[in-house]
Amino acid sequence: MRIAFQGAPGAYSEAAGLRFKPSAEPMPCETFEDVFDAVQNRKATHGIVPIENTIGGTIRQNYDLLLRHELPIVAEVHLPVVHNLVALEGVRLENVKRVYSHPQALAQCEQFLRGLKGVEIVANYDTAGSAKMIADGKMTDAAAIASDRAAEVFGLSILETGIQDFAENITRFLVISTEALTQGKADKTTIAFSVPNEPGALFKALSVFTLRDIDLGKLESRPIPGRPWEYLFFADLKADREDFRCARALIHLAEFAPLVRTLGSYPSWKEPETGGSKAETRNQTANLV
Amino acid sequence: MRIAFQGAPGAYSEAAGLRFKPSAEPMPCETFEDVFDAVQNRKATHGIVPIENTIGGTIRQNYDLLLRHELPIVAEVHLPVVHNLVALEGVRLENVKRVYSHPQALAQCEQFLRGLKGVEIVANYDTAGSAKMIADGKMTDAAAIASDRAAEVFGLSILETGIQDFAENITRFLVISTEALTQGKADKTTIAFSVPNEPGALFKALSVFTLRDIDLGKLESRPIPGRPWEYLFFADLKADREDFRCARALIHLAEFAPLVRTLGSYPSWKEPETGGSKAETRNQTANLV
Repeated sequence: MRIAFQGAPGAYSEAAGLRFKPSAEPMPCETFEDVFDAVQNRKATHGIVPIENTIGGTIRQNYDLLLRHELPIVAEVHLPVVHNLVALEGVRLENVKRVYSHPQALAQCEQFLRGLKGVEIVANYDTAGSAKMIADGKMTDAAAIASDRAAEVFGLSILETGIQDFAENITRFLVISTEALTQGKADKTTIAFSVPNEPGALFKALSVFTLRDIDLGKLESRPIPGRPWEYLFFADLKADREDFRCARALIHLAEFAPLVRTLGSYPSWKEPETGGSKAETRNQTANLV
Repeated sequence: MRIAFQGAPGAYSEAAGLRFKPSAEPMPCETFEDVFDAVQNRKATHGIVPIENTIGGTIRQNYDLLLRHELPIVAEVHLPVVHNLVALEGVRLENVKRVYSHPQALAQCEQFLRGLKGVEIVANYDTAGSAKMIADGKMTDAAAIASDRAAEVFGLSILETGIQDFAENITRFLVISTEALTQGKADKTTIAFSVPNEPGALFKALSVFTLRDIDLGKLESRPIPGRPWEYLFFADLKADREDFRCARALIHLAEFAPLVRTLGSYPSWKEPETGGSKAETRNQTANLV
């Protein structure tokens, strides 16, 4: 199994891929689009992309990419985000004059960064890339905000750990594949649908699920380009698409929705149990990233 | 009337402010947060911020800022976005080696930019700022993507106009003020609400409006920081909050929603009629931006 991810080795997406399958070979890609292309062109068996963070919200670009491709979602992965301030061995907090990271990571550590006096904050391409730059440039007056795995990969020390503003900072990733095989029983289905531009249309759309006791995990709206003030909705249903109620609900929705598409049906994330085997130990490390 | 906006003179936000009130004095601010602060601290009577674009979607940061402040929405403005390739007088398309603009504007002109061979695309702070940089630096081998007003302000020529991928590219702005006076009758209300974390909760929330024939113009979800997988919803209702049905619906919603807040009730945007008076002529110019 080879899993394409966006970013440099040590990126949070790589850690999420290893949570999904500890024995997989991670394949770094420059952009999210490259991840989809790698799976489409069979250069990777799977791809993993972030879809939602409990602080920052939805990564909308990946919903757009799911819609533009025919690559089913086969799994989801939750990754607790623990940000660290990392620097060269021997560098101390008072030596740090500049902090580099991805804008999203900088925003998530705002309180901590405010406490550092006279330090310049510099936005950069990605978190692991910032750590790499400090290692490659042997920068003794700078630090990066990155995962502990990035520190390990680039031989940096951790000056401070858990510097994010909210402890419960979790990113949810989706795994895509041309092989629609899921591990375990599907109990979650992600769909995209549009509604006619008339009063009560969204309410009617949701009713096909509520009237069948199918719970909604998330609802996201995106504009339809070229059709001002009309929206496409992305919803997570807490049911297998093969479930009779769910299948009927989707047929009911298609009676009046101009577009209904299932993007995948897959098992919802379960935290791995910690244990003694080798695979589990590796998984446990990824837990902490 | 002084209207705070984010960006440099010639920014699309400034044009939107002048569409709202042609005689107003525009006040440039560095960030969206600065716009809210200027209104809060009475340095400006009004502020204007983009909330949604028909291609790019919601500007979520401004929903977060609306929630963090107690500044009511008093109006909305629609601005058709027409992107132009602007350069120094005498520069021709074949001389252009680099194109500067805001990442969002670059993304909206992707097809056009792909047609320019051997040109470097450079992301910059803002559209009007890119035009200013070219003017100030007397750069004869570069161009910017910006509004026609930015070209006028910085004395640049328009090499190509209407270079955006979708003709119907419209940005919706919200006007905030400490003076809750609206011009005209309110027929739109923006609210924020949360729902209990239980099955069918969002459906029940929407039912308070649908059962009273109140139409929903937009629904946007944002994560609640520190409470994973719980969401806050922002909705546009097509009714005045003082309308009996709307007032009852909001009271009904508050019976079971942990949070209900009205962010403002205001007249929905009407395209200005073109005419002969001086103010209208100026408005007409803004129309074309």
